[in-house]
Amino acid sequence: MNLNTVRYILGTLLIVLGVAMVPSLGWSIYYGENAINAFLYSIVAAIGVGLLLRIKASLKKDLGLREGLLIVTLGWILAGIFGALPFVFHGSAATFIDGFFEAVSGFTTTGATVMNNVEALPRGLLFWRSFTHWLGGMGIIVLFLAILPGVGAGGFHMFRAEVPGPSVSKLSSRIAHTAKTLWYIYLGLTVLQTVLLMFAGFNLFDSLTHTFGTVATGGFSTRALSVAALKNPAAVTIILIFMALSGINFSLYYYLLRKQWDRVYNDEELKFYLGVILVTTLLIAWNIRGLIPSKADLLRSSAFQVVSIMTTTGYATTNFDLWPTFSKMLLLLLMFFGGCAGSTGGAMKQIRVLILSKYCGREMLRTLHPKAVIPIKVGGKPVPDDILRNIMAFSFIYIAAFVFGSLFIAMLGQDMITSVSSVAATLGNIGPGLGSVGPESTFSEIPQIGKLVLSFLMLMGRLELFTVILCFTPGFWRGVPILGTVPKHSRRMNI
Amino acid sequence: MNLNTVRYILGTLLIVLGVAMVPSLGWSIYYGENAINAFLYSIVAAIGVGLLLRIKASLKKDLGLREGLLIVTLGWILAGIFGALPFVFHGSAATFIDGFFEAVSGFTTTGATVMNNVEALPRGLLFWRSFTHWLGGMGIIVLFLAILPGVGAGGFHMFRAEVPGPSVSKLSSRIAHTAKTLWYIYLGLTVLQTVLLMFAGFNLFDSLTHTFGTVATGGFSTRALSVAALKNPAAVTIILIFMALSGINFSLYYYLLRKQWDRVYNDEELKFYLGVILVTTLLIAWNIRGLIPSKADLLRSSAFQVVSIMTTTGYATTNFDLWPTFSKMLLLLLMFFGGCAGSTGGAMKQIRVLILSKYCGREMLRTLHPKAVIPIKVGGKPVPDDILRNIMAFSFIYIAAFVFGSLFIAMLGQDMITSVSSVAATLGNIGPGLGSVGPESTFSEIPQIGKLVLSFLMLMGRLELFTVILCFTPGFWRGVPILGTVPKHSRRMNI
Repeated sequence: MNLNTVRYILGTLLIVLGVAMVPSLGWSIYYGENAINAFLYSIVAAIGVGLLLRIKASLKKDLGLREGLLIVTLGWILAGIFGALPFVFHGSAATFIDGFFEAVSGFTTTGATVMNNVEALPRGLLFWRSFTHWLGGMGIIVLFLAILPGVGAGGFHMFRAEVPGPSVSKLSSRIAHTAKTLWYIYLGLTVLQTVLLMFAGFNLFDSLTHTFGTVATGGFSTRALSVAALKNPAAVTIILIFMALSGINFSLYYYLLRKQWDRVYNDEELKFYLGVILVTTLLIAWNIRGLIPSKADLLRSSAFQVVSIMTTTGYATTNFDLWPTFSKMLLLLLMFFGGCAGSTGGAMKQIRVLILSKYCGREMLRTLHPKAVIPIKVGGKPVPDDILRNIMAFSFIYIAAFVFGSLFIAMLGQDMITSVSSVAATLGNIGPGLGSVGPESTFSEIPQIGKLVLSFLMLMGRLELFTVILCFTPGFWRGVPILGTVPKHSRRMNI
Repeated sequence: MNLNTVRYILGTLLIVLGVAMVPSLGWSIYYGENAINAFLYSIVAAIGVGLLLRIKASLKKDLGLREGLLIVTLGWILAGIFGALPFVFHGSAATFIDGFFEAVSGFTTTGATVMNNVEALPRGLLFWRSFTHWLGGMGIIVLFLAILPGVGAGGFHMFRAEVPGPSVSKLSSRIAHTAKTLWYIYLGLTVLQTVLLMFAGFNLFDSLTHTFGTVATGGFSTRALSVAALKNPAAVTIILIFMALSGINFSLYYYLLRKQWDRVYNDEELKFYLGVILVTTLLIAWNIRGLIPSKADLLRSSAFQVVSIMTTTGYATTNFDLWPTFSKMLLLLLMFFGGCAGSTGGAMKQIRVLILSKYCGREMLRTLHPKAVIPIKVGGKPVPDDILRNIMAFSFIYIAAFVFGSLFIAMLGQDMITSVSSVAATLGNIGPGLGSVGPESTFSEIPQIGKLVLSFLMLMGRLELFTVILCFTPGFWRGVPILGTVPKHSRRMNI
């Protein structure tokens, strides 16, 4: 393992992070708030440590798979640690773990908060919270790949580790070009929504923060009652539309720009995604029809919550924790679906759920026709066996992480609904859950060790499990010169 | 499809069922109860319809896959319908659906009841409830295969559809011999436990009914408070041991009898099963240590509930619905594990859970070594790819049935814990759940349509999903002469 390059890239990452805090410092200065020092210290710390890490380090272009996975995992953990500093230095986070939870929740675009009094926070800090969403949404390392001179094969591994979904359709043969394109589309959506929200009557600050929360499918709001507090129907509709747009594979926007209409029209995942939104919106609207008299309000409320939860944003226009059990359970189920592959949405991703159902259907059919060869197709193309196996394993590990995470939170004394939904909401990078972590509550009541585990689950969810888990297995470190001897590679091994 | 043979076998099944009611009638006569007429009518109905079905029907030995699946599914539904008659004729079931739920719960060895006042029921009916467990435990159709002259390939399909677990290790080349052997072992366990319970102070009636509930991993008791009401520590220990024994693959007893010790000693599923019991017993004992002062009582209470739930029996020595959330959630998780393959236990089965974890581990490892060939081994033997695929699909369909079943029950207005646990407990053939369907409550409050769906889930769980689901797909019926034309078989097909 080339630890020099790892240090170099992580150091650079911290320097970028320090620079990324400057706009938040700017807002604090503009509003004359008491968070100015907190930002100054944080910027110095991030850039300082970044420079230290880069001492005697250099960028080699022969980055391997392990280096890529390690950089991504450590990069995200460091971002959480240094991103927490403004909250810690300002004193708005009661403990360092609280600050870490908030920062990880921001970068992973989860949007779960421990801040009980959001409205009392300095606007610089509120901006930083929302800005971490935006940085994490498309992936801070993808951004990095876009601006860094080519890093070779490891770059693709990092890209793959960070961009959501089972398979990355490279838009271009050059990874840097693909990364740049994705970021341009992301920037385009951001600018468009910000302008629209300003037209709807928001000021620049509210427009920017809510846009960051939307296009990154994050969900941090500047208000305790989330979007409900803004009392602006036009803005709610804009946010609803942009949440739905941010849950779509960004490649499709690239195809749209290149006028390849049929690639968009034939996208099976998109159809599945829209179908799930439609069906669940109608089911919930039917279930809560007694609570909201106006039919238009009923549909908008239902659609907003469905899209917000399923794209893993987590904004709320109403306290859905008060809805009937059926609606709550349906939302809990949607927490597992997530956005499309290649979107900023988290959780399992639509494409995996789609392929999973096809896989089950195929095996049923095979019971009747044991010798038939039945390929699983998506958009007319057969899905290769190794991707199928990967999707099956991913889904089970996801469910296992959910089950054991929930058991752990229950062991800390939380009730069942809180335990289950807090884990589903963090692992899937959604934000609010149900019960004690419902949309009008926060995660502040969860014990410190629980917050640490939930932060870890957010990272696991954001980096799609394998990356993070592998970095914690001994097998990963075998072959690292400073830790062990390089093993002879055998083609067959036992587990 | 050979419907003549289907009619013949189903008709014979009903006649057997009618005869099987005679011992219960005997108990009613012995105790001079008012259930005598109910049994007489039921016996006449079952045998009468059985004879009607057999008119002009004959047994052909060329039974195919579809016939086998259809006979098993219809056979179990008919058993539920005619098994319900004694409850309906006696009036102890408020509606026919209530009676059907109770009978299906019996045959599938679930043990979920709608009877609010069990102790007031005539003993003939109580015996019938428990006897349905015993008939369903090893499989009424397996019994059938054991006594019926050979039915060809279809017999193996029926056998496979009814004996739990992903792969049936035929103990002998002749299916009838294997079926007979399994029933002899089953009978041996039954006699042994009955005698032991009588030594512990039970009368013959209580010994038999509780033995049926134990060896079939059923869980119907003759008392409203289940085993707790018997206040007999020796009996509780005997039941605990026999529950654990009934969750083990019955083939292992066959090997024991043939002194093939190493096949038992090397059985990986057995080790996994015992390991899960040990770990969860200790975890729950730790979690409930504040509730039970004596250490021996604590361990016995914890072990009893773990074994009872995991083997899918469902007996209770205490109201575990009052335990802390962590313990309740752990029990809920165990509801998915079930017994070993080839035992009378239901749910997903230990071997599937074991293989599932190995599969996930392998795919993680493959991320680091993309080109490595890593076979999944159980007991030193690689698991074939088609069985792996089948297990993955089975597990997802199981989870999907659980999720959609829970949503349905929630739609009927039940709370989340009741919805989730009622479905897990019926699909897994356990019996009691949590909340409104906890160990000291019954399923009587669930609306009629809910009871029907839960009955269906019990059948799906008992017959391991595929058998039941396939019978309800149009593809299954394609090629049935009276329903459609025989299609040209193609080697490739799309789903």
